[in-house]
Amino acid sequence: MADYVQRKNHFNIGLIARIMGILILLNGIFMFTCLPFSFYFGDGDWWALTEAGLITVLSGGLIMFYGERKGYKKEIKKKDGYIIVSLGWTVMAFFGSLPYLFSLENPSLTNAYFETISGYSTTGASILTDIESVGKGILFWRSLTQWIGGMGIIVLAVAVLPFLGIGGMQLFVAEAPGISPDKLQPRIKETAKRLWWVYAGLTGIETILLMTGGMNFYDAINHALTTMATGGFSTYNDSAASMSPYIQYILIVFMILAGTNFTLNYFLFKRMFKAIWTNEEFRYYAGIIISASLAIGGVVAFSSDLTIEKSFRDALFQVVSIITTTGYVSADYTAWAPFATMIIFVLMFCGGMAGSTAGGVKIVRHIILFKNSFIELKRQLHPTAIIPVRFNKKAIKEGITFNVLAFIMAYLLIFGLGILVMSALGVDLMTSLGAVATSLGNIGPGIGTVGPVDNFAHLPDAAKWILSFLMLLGRLELFTVMIIFTPYFWSRF
Amino acid sequence: MADYVQRKNHFNIGLIARIMGILILLNGIFMFTCLPFSFYFGDGDWWALTEAGLITVLSGGLIMFYGERKGYKKEIKKKDGYIIVSLGWTVMAFFGSLPYLFSLENPSLTNAYFETISGYSTTGASILTDIESVGKGILFWRSLTQWIGGMGIIVLAVAVLPFLGIGGMQLFVAEAPGISPDKLQPRIKETAKRLWWVYAGLTGIETILLMTGGMNFYDAINHALTTMATGGFSTYNDSAASMSPYIQYILIVFMILAGTNFTLNYFLFKRMFKAIWTNEEFRYYAGIIISASLAIGGVVAFSSDLTIEKSFRDALFQVVSIITTTGYVSADYTAWAPFATMIIFVLMFCGGMAGSTAGGVKIVRHIILFKNSFIELKRQLHPTAIIPVRFNKKAIKEGITFNVLAFIMAYLLIFGLGILVMSALGVDLMTSLGAVATSLGNIGPGIGTVGPVDNFAHLPDAAKWILSFLMLLGRLELFTVMIIFTPYFWSRF
Ligand SMILES: [K+]
Ligand SMILES: [K+]
Repeated sequence: MADYVQRKNHFNIGLIARIMGILILLNGIFMFTCLPFSFYFGDGDWWALTEAGLITVLSGGLIMFYGERKGYKKEIKKKDGYIIVSLGWTVMAFFGSLPYLFSLENPSLTNAYFETISGYSTTGASILTDIESVGKGILFWRSLTQWIGGMGIIVLAVAVLPFLGIGGMQLFVAEAPGISPDKLQPRIKETAKRLWWVYAGLTGIETILLMTGGMNFYDAINHALTTMATGGFSTYNDSAASMSPYIQYILIVFMILAGTNFTLNYFLFKRMFKAIWTNEEFRYYAGIIISASLAIGGVVAFSSDLTIEKSFRDALFQVVSIITTTGYVSADYTAWAPFATMIIFVLMFCGGMAGSTAGGVKIVRHIILFKNSFIELKRQLHPTAIIPVRFNKKAIKEGITFNVLAFIMAYLLIFGLGILVMSALGVDLMTSLGAVATSLGNIGPGIGTVGPVDNFAHLPDAAKWILSFLMLLGRLELFTVMIIFTPYFWSRF
Repeated sequence: MADYVQRKNHFNIGLIARIMGILILLNGIFMFTCLPFSFYFGDGDWWALTEAGLITVLSGGLIMFYGERKGYKKEIKKKDGYIIVSLGWTVMAFFGSLPYLFSLENPSLTNAYFETISGYSTTGASILTDIESVGKGILFWRSLTQWIGGMGIIVLAVAVLPFLGIGGMQLFVAEAPGISPDKLQPRIKETAKRLWWVYAGLTGIETILLMTGGMNFYDAINHALTTMATGGFSTYNDSAASMSPYIQYILIVFMILAGTNFTLNYFLFKRMFKAIWTNEEFRYYAGIIISASLAIGGVVAFSSDLTIEKSFRDALFQVVSIITTTGYVSADYTAWAPFATMIIFVLMFCGGMAGSTAGGVKIVRHIILFKNSFIELKRQLHPTAIIPVRFNKKAIKEGITFNVLAFIMAYLLIFGLGILVMSALGVDLMTSLGAVATSLGNIGPGIGTVGPVDNFAHLPDAAKWILSFLMLLGRLELFTVMIIFTPYFWSRF
């Protein structure tokens, strides 16, 4: 019991403030990296970015200073962890929306916040109706919010979520070298740093490769930032639709990498190919991508007059874009035959690998769900036998299986509740289905009037706030946020 | 282990044949009860019914005789149970479709089988485009298939499913007097008989009450048969839409009773009101009906020019019709404001109480799902504490909670797979959603082109067979059927 009981000083306010302050400060510093682009392209937004950066850096500094002054214990308790993660993302997004508020014509707080949380959560749903008319400095900030969000996700996945006991995240962590799922250890810092280098390295390599395909440096770095974060913000109005096949294939490869557990990407750098290929989750990940692409490619080739190559490329691109929850658009999948559109919609509930920057349910959870369902049938015939679910050749503790099932149920409950609330706001059924699925899964494009060639600008303000909350909920693996709304979280035990 | 291991004589073929024979025989006898109506109304179908009845009685007798000749052990093993239940329903539906095949113009086996399995499964989805043009004898058979199906469900719920270990059914059975959930006992026969009397008694009372509202005897008994079975076949083309408010209120009351655990209905006859009101599942059942009706009634009253009474009556009628999975239609809910339609769609996944004739997921499972989700959040903070789910003030064994979660997941997986297959057959997304949800939940009307004022005639044949299978799957609580498709069911252990 000792690890969560905190009688006096219920929350470690000093430490929470200090960490939040540092997060805000770092975001402010990132804002200044947009200035070179703003000056180079002469978009006139340099002052907006400077103002936003100064306010953010100063606020972050003050909050950090307040935390230092107040004093704190160095040890992070579980409850503090939930607060830091949920509040951190929420508050960061308020500061992150300043560049939009200071630069866009007629910005509303709702729209600016929606765009920012869509960035930090790596969702990529946008209220911008004409992306290419926005200043290059601001657009770089937009891409950067996703890249920062992706960095946050990596540290969450390797260090924070397993420590907070979020379903299934313990599983892949046990795979990562030098990580104990039970305690927040100093060695985890090393692991997080190593994975950040992988993340930054892949972003650099992708930028260069995109430039070899003829993309200019600005567009290349923006797309690299949002690919690796599985964010999906593009600097083009039509996303990936007008890109050359070569560039589309590069995006496909890097989306796949971004949806892969970053520990496996580290193995890739280390040329430990066997460790990648024997990973059970990776095999399913590859298997789903291949089979869904073949099925959709066949349907598209058969039902349209596109070439075979273009049909299968579009299919592969969209399958990868949706399963990794990136959300780039090379083709309007809602215009495909219903069966192909349906597969894409189902894939919205799939998600990439745990430990990647992808959102959604994650493949490992589906594996456990399916295995447990089959085993449940077996248990029915042999009620006294104890048959554990096995993953990566190891038996999984029943508590984890339980947690994974509860996670998936919570995901679907929130999905159902979400579409109920959206329809209460007068949004039609198809759009509700699409908007909620894509926000909760941090994907980006949906179906209905928020399809791949639409945007979210026309939704009522209340809907935008709800979707913003769903993006946060999805990105933080639900339970991290939900637990804060329970009475026992606020009780002293 | 002793209760399921059968080394030699893997299945008890003799006993299976005997029980199947009896079931078919009884169905044949029921067919003859349609003759008086056929003669009275002079619909010209008496020979079709007689032919069908004779074939069915003779076939049943032969199969029974084969079973007797082959010899059998009296003891029913679990695996035999799954076979009897699944095969019984499937084969009964083939014989039950004979009256349609012999009487309808241009009957196809697909359509006849669809209509019959829709009857026995108490779904009520229909391929008939003009119900009132069908002979009265045949229509009575149509209603009777639902009533027979309802009888089957009651015995399944109190005796068979708990014995087969189907998720959550053990829970309500523990509530039924004189029932042990562990063994198939002789006393269960008594309980089943008692509940059948309640079922038949309520059918009789409803017939009389409907006649006091001005309905003729024929229509009254047909509607009583299909109300108590939560079947929903009507003898009118427009279902309940043109009925008087008085008659609609009678239907509402009896639909609610039909969706109530029949043990509670037995308590009602015994005037044990406290035992009803303290039942946790009943309270939620009542609570959902009231709150959903108020919400929808408000929306309809506000967004249409109907009177307040009519708005709330329509809302109450459709909420009760959908939650009890009866499927009568008093108003086209797909024409309501999106929010109201959405609530109806969500209710399709709710279902009535366990131990009633209602289909769907059942309320008890939702209660356990929700409670477990909340407790899971608690477990996250207190990972070492053991916190069981409580239902009706008792702690529930973890195995049952597990089974309930697996059931709900299987339900949703089959739902997802169902819409995928439907769209592969070229059915549009809305219709797929509606048809699969309504078939799996044994409800009747859906959304899209199988909405409350449409029928299923226009669907492709393959879709009809798939929906027929889904009706069976839903009616038999999924696992009963699914287990037969697993390899270990056919292994010797
Ligand atoms: K995304
Ligand atoms: K029904």
